[in-house]
Amino acid sequence: MQLSKMIDQARGLEKADLVIRNCRVVNVLSGEIHESDVGIAGGIFLGFGDYKAERVFDAGGRFLLPGLVEGHIHIESTLLTPPHFAQAVAARGTAAVVCDPHEIANVSGSAGVEYMLEVSRNLPVSIFFMFPSCVPATALETSGAVLSAGDFEHFRRLYPERILGLAEMMNFPGVLAKDPEVLSKLEAAKGHRIDGHAPLLSGLDLNAYILAGPRSDHECSNTPEAMEKMRSGMHLMMREGSLERNMEDLLGMVNDFNSQNISIVTDDRNVLDLRENGHLDYGLRRAVALGMDPVRAVQMVSINTARYFGLSGYGAIAPGFRANCFLVDDLKEFAVENVFIEGQFLEELCFESDAGFPPLSSMNIGSEIDESMFRPEEGRGNIRVIGVSRGQLLTENLELEPLLEGGQPIADPSRDICKLTVIERHTATGNRATGFVRGLGLSCGAIAGTVAHDSHNLVVAGMNDVDMVLAAREVARIGGGFTVVRSGEVLGTLSLPVAGLMSDKGLDEVAEAVRGLDRATKQLGCSYNPFMQISFLALPVIPSLKLTDRGLVDVAAFDFTGLWVK
Amino acid sequence: MQLSKMIDQARGLEKADLVIRNCRVVNVLSGEIHESDVGIAGGIFLGFGDYKAERVFDAGGRFLLPGLVEGHIHIESTLLTPPHFAQAVAARGTAAVVCDPHEIANVSGSAGVEYMLEVSRNLPVSIFFMFPSCVPATALETSGAVLSAGDFEHFRRLYPERILGLAEMMNFPGVLAKDPEVLSKLEAAKGHRIDGHAPLLSGLDLNAYILAGPRSDHECSNTPEAMEKMRSGMHLMMREGSLERNMEDLLGMVNDFNSQNISIVTDDRNVLDLRENGHLDYGLRRAVALGMDPVRAVQMVSINTARYFGLSGYGAIAPGFRANCFLVDDLKEFAVENVFIEGQFLEELCFESDAGFPPLSSMNIGSEIDESMFRPEEGRGNIRVIGVSRGQLLTENLELEPLLEGGQPIADPSRDICKLTVIERHTATGNRATGFVRGLGLSCGAIAGTVAHDSHNLVVAGMNDVDMVLAAREVARIGGGFTVVRSGEVLGTLSLPVAGLMSDKGLDEVAEAVRGLDRATKQLGCSYNPFMQISFLALPVIPSLKLTDRGLVDVAAFDFTGLWVK
Repeated sequence: MQLSKMIDQARGLEKADLVIRNCRVVNVLSGEIHESDVGIAGGIFLGFGDYKAERVFDAGGRFLLPGLVEGHIHIESTLLTPPHFAQAVAARGTAAVVCDPHEIANVSGSAGVEYMLEVSRNLPVSIFFMFPSCVPATALETSGAVLSAGDFEHFRRLYPERILGLAEMMNFPGVLAKDPEVLSKLEAAKGHRIDGHAPLLSGLDLNAYILAGPRSDHECSNTPEAMEKMRSGMHLMMREGSLERNMEDLLGMVNDFNSQNISIVTDDRNVLDLRENGHLDYGLRRAVALGMDPVRAVQMVSINTARYFGLSGYGAIAPGFRANCFLVDDLKEFAVENVFIEGQFLEELCFESDAGFPPLSSMNIGSEIDESMFRPEEGRGNIRVIGVSRGQLLTENLELEPLLEGGQPIADPSRDICKLTVIERHTATGNRATGFVRGLGLSCGAIAGTVAHDSHNLVVAGMNDVDMVLAAREVARIGGGFTVVRSGEVLGTLSLPVAGLMSDKGLDEVAEAVRGLDRATKQLGCSYNPFMQISFLALPVIPSLKLTDRGLVDVAAFDFTGLWVK
Repeated sequence: MQLSKMIDQARGLEKADLVIRNCRVVNVLSGEIHESDVGIAGGIFLGFGDYKAERVFDAGGRFLLPGLVEGHIHIESTLLTPPHFAQAVAARGTAAVVCDPHEIANVSGSAGVEYMLEVSRNLPVSIFFMFPSCVPATALETSGAVLSAGDFEHFRRLYPERILGLAEMMNFPGVLAKDPEVLSKLEAAKGHRIDGHAPLLSGLDLNAYILAGPRSDHECSNTPEAMEKMRSGMHLMMREGSLERNMEDLLGMVNDFNSQNISIVTDDRNVLDLRENGHLDYGLRRAVALGMDPVRAVQMVSINTARYFGLSGYGAIAPGFRANCFLVDDLKEFAVENVFIEGQFLEELCFESDAGFPPLSSMNIGSEIDESMFRPEEGRGNIRVIGVSRGQLLTENLELEPLLEGGQPIADPSRDICKLTVIERHTATGNRATGFVRGLGLSCGAIAGTVAHDSHNLVVAGMNDVDMVLAAREVARIGGGFTVVRSGEVLGTLSLPVAGLMSDKGLDEVAEAVRGLDRATKQLGCSYNPFMQISFLALPVIPSLKLTDRGLVDVAAFDFTGLWVK
């Protein structure tokens, strides 16, 4: 818009486009709540005052909040593509998102990153990116791609406005060991934001890690850890996701002089949570319930995050900011109503991608799936079994006597031990490995899925090989996704045609499908959704025993180990 | 420094350059004070911890503060060149300065700005610039130069790291009136910082001004004004200078949720104040005396300012920040001791400019100075007289009966009315104007000076024409500066060879010279230093009656008026 026209509109000499009257503004800049009308023109806030406008909206004395800003999320965790995700979170007051397409990058590499960038361009919710720093995540698994410092530079040149920097540098041992690949990425990202990921890193090693570039952390799980990181210059991302919830343990770090250095983020958000509890509005609700002042809480999901990332024009209601805002009745429930994005009513906005980008197919296993793929290595004595507990990502490294059939170890429903097979699905290497898991809660049948951090290979868990083969074939047939099988029958399926990670359907439909899977797994005797659990069984960076497509991993040794205890 | 070497030093695998042991760190990031040792290498902080180092300095339990950051100052106000200024403020804990070379720009234009940039490059104190936005300040006076949007762009290209944006846009009426020259400067500076200057601007006009670009204000004089500006997105610069002191009136704006948007700045600092009371350390002392929490006060002279300007690496003690810091015994007196800049002891640093830039001569009057230049216009009846009060910049527009000699109005010591003449000194236009001032406190003789906001023409005040001619000639002879004359004798002189604004001497010498002028003016019967007062008598933007080289100005009408009341 012409500056001179804006000046006239701001001065009230020309009509504004919209005025929201009778608000109590939660002002994240002055740190107060004040009554005001708010004028909007050309998609931006003109400011506070008695504006005449083409459209008038009466807020009826409700609280007006700035559009929320998410600082760290893997959109793939919602199973929604960026347009559907944007539509879902916009209804919860989110106006801008900084995402890390780490999952799709591990499946599809540059093509995956490009897909996310392209299908999210020009959406009403602004989607910014941090470029994945750890693809592949480890050398103990087969990912679909490798991303280098050169890829970062290439993408930054192509998308200078939307790629803000380098995403969470999870490989902190690599930083400390001065791994040349890792350092070259950090050097390439110099001058841009670099997010950190360094659970429990402390002392001189933390200093070295920060010095190398990362300036945020979302992995803190206790107050002393968070304080040390903040002292040393990190922006603290207080995570309250579907999986990891750290807020309650971290509130002790907040004081009257440091809260500008704290954001509330989700990291991951499952689709049911998103639909039922919301997005950052949930974080607000939770923070206030835990005793935080509402103005401070709103700052942590708006201006603090915008400033950390240098997103000017986002996160506040003030002249020149994007006219993103919404109303709530109170500052406890934060029930989001009347969302405006760039001065438009949410209901009038289009969330369809204009990119015309086809879904990214995946599932390249290479050969017909048959029972031979599920055969464990031979041996004798006890076997190593992954021990899981409901809701825990940490696993136990158990040594148990196997149930044998024809000399081969098999699943044992009586002890809640199922077979687990991971099959490489990206580049048809033929890699696959089989082990055993205790505690998944299946009594029969099999489940399979292609969401399996970080390489997202095909993971199949089951009580018999026939059902396991069927489950794997079904997932391959639908181009990736989840399935539940019992006695040769497919009980439930959720197809994830985008890289085997995301559905092409909207929030309600995907949530319904997830509920369908839930019902199906109940028929296998499982009292909870085991897909989340199996999605972490192939992640070799969380202790103690894991299984990748290349074999069983003893995480403590950060190396492979055998099925059979010697 | 090599990243991999830094990593090893930060981890303690290689020796650091310096460790400061046994500190109580005032941590502006975590908002606390904590005990720690601090490691330094390659000019940057490695972080907190037990480092082994080449040099060890024991802080003896004193408080360690980050090097201070000045957000808004006209260095010329100190009468010191940037190197001498830097040396003076470094001793007071200042490590970075954002200056606006508005004064020298009005005298010497681009050459003046270039001079300031060149002589301040590579000093231990980092000097950043905001490019002057209002040269000339008004059309009612003759400045030495005109700076355009094109000049801004040219300088930004030459000094992309050191010119941060556009300096205080004083011409807010021009912004609101959409003056094309003004808007072109704002457009050119888009995406960079633009400082504001809009005393008492409010409501829709304030919205328009902010929307046009300026995002800070240092002119607030009361809390409601400051709150409105902060609500609307301005960074508040709480000014506590030598001339204008707003802190006490503004403390009401600070709450627990907004202080990150506030900086303490000086705007101007006279050389005696600088020497006796210090720089930002004075602001700290004053804020704490007025009841502010010391951690919050330190934030306002360090990280808050650094972040507003996007100066990464300044304003905090944390890994990767420049190792600028100093020690104090307590958080009340803030007596600065043991300054380190980039990890060097202050005493070991060199503050000489490496630019080899000659002083910028000025004083281009064009013709011999004689009594004809001091002749007022002819007329009859009463005359308009500028009424001044000690320490006030506002003047009265008096109408008084003149004392006449040969039909000409002359000075009248019995009523404390002296003659005032302003002579254009930049481009030999021959412009000059004469009026009268009541209240300067001279009983005889004359004073002259070339510091006269904003165009800095030659201002001469005196009780007789002979002494006025001598004073003017003396100032011309010394290439600009101040002088005091009585009965044909020069009683005191301070030469300001750099553009008639700055001395080429150091802090102590200039302070001593100013005291000498003080003693000299006492011999004229003046009980205070009248040079500050006359330096604002030619500034036609502060009410009510002023005199520029082009004539008497009725500030309310923003136009010229006659000496004689019609």
